[in-house]
Amino acid sequence: MGPITGEQIAEKLSLTRATLRPDLAILTMSGLLEARPRVGYFHSGKFPHQIVAKKIQSLLVADIKSVPIVVSEKCSVYDAVVTMFIEDVGTLFVVKEGGLLEGVISRKDLLKTTLGGQDIQKLPVGVVMTRMPNVLFTHTEESVWSAAWKLITHEVDALPVVRKVAQPDGSDGYEVVGRLSKTNITRLFVELGEGN
Amino acid sequence: MGPITGEQIAEKLSLTRATLRPDLAILTMSGLLEARPRVGYFHSGKFPHQIVAKKIQSLLVADIKSVPIVVSEKCSVYDAVVTMFIEDVGTLFVVKEGGLLEGVISRKDLLKTTLGGQDIQKLPVGVVMTRMPNVLFTHTEESVWSAAWKLITHEVDALPVVRKVAQPDGSDGYEVVGRLSKTNITRLFVELGEGN
Repeated sequence: MGPITGEQIAEKLSLTRATLRPDLAILTMSGLLEARPRVGYFHSGKFPHQIVAKKIQSLLVADIKSVPIVVSEKCSVYDAVVTMFIEDVGTLFVVKEGGLLEGVISRKDLLKTTLGGQDIQKLPVGVVMTRMPNVLFTHTEESVWSAAWKLITHEVDALPVVRKVAQPDGSDGYEVVGRLSKTNITRLFVELGEGN
Repeated sequence: MGPITGEQIAEKLSLTRATLRPDLAILTMSGLLEARPRVGYFHSGKFPHQIVAKKIQSLLVADIKSVPIVVSEKCSVYDAVVTMFIEDVGTLFVVKEGGLLEGVISRKDLLKTTLGGQDIQKLPVGVVMTRMPNVLFTHTEESVWSAAWKLITHEVDALPVVRKVAQPDGSDGYEVVGRLSKTNITRLFVELGEGN
């Protein structure tokens, strides 16, 4: 069906435009109808599951990210575990001067290390962390959907949220500005289900 | 606006009912319109975010649960950690004979224990697990939303999916039939965002 103007719809339904306006607004906001200025309304061709997908795709990492918990590369494995318990997080980000990302260490990495029988009071996290450039990350303007896809595809629990910073030597550094975990996604899922 | 029949809509728009049917079906499926037999169509009063909420609320734990990984109460902490790595899960369920739930043990519990300096080859998981009746669980017919709410509110990574079983002594037992984790929720979020 071709486009139809608000006036035409009102005339056909024997209603005023004012009466119709809220209903047209709902259909347009839902994505089922599209409104083109000076042309009119037409069916978008979208189905309800596509409306759900559109909503999910529209959310940004910036909207739901948490505060990052960071340690230095020289921090001992023991202190890293203690930090994890104090801050109640499952992943720590390892940074150098200026807060630039060096590596990531997870509860799983630490559990494996404590099992190894080494002196974890002396062992620095730098030895057991996943090191750049092998660290996956996200940024504030990436969609939550895309970041969640990285978590699932690469089987990690959390991603550092970074901001690219030009270094004096011309290379790129990545300042850690947040944390995005499966907990953030689960909390978002609960909020979307509340319909507020 | 009151209900309006399919015939009346068709007449007002100078279209056949057959032409209208797909559009009415889309609006009804989306939840924006409601159809009442022998009465007609009316606006449901729902907004798009409520459509997203309705979809999320409609999914059941049965649709997305994973296979549970279980150990016996006498299993050592060391063997539990090894099982966790072999099976690549963050939570183990501790069961007695017949697969009945006794407790839950997480990566966090195990990390705390390995740090304690005890002999984890000899220490049984029964000593460090969270024990029934202090274990949160879900069942196949609970909504994923409600299970996700439990994960967030009680700050746990996974729930056992159980089926109630009457015991010979008249008490209730809970057979472990699945596992629902933040990973399942994140994977579902990715799938909903794909719009398939």
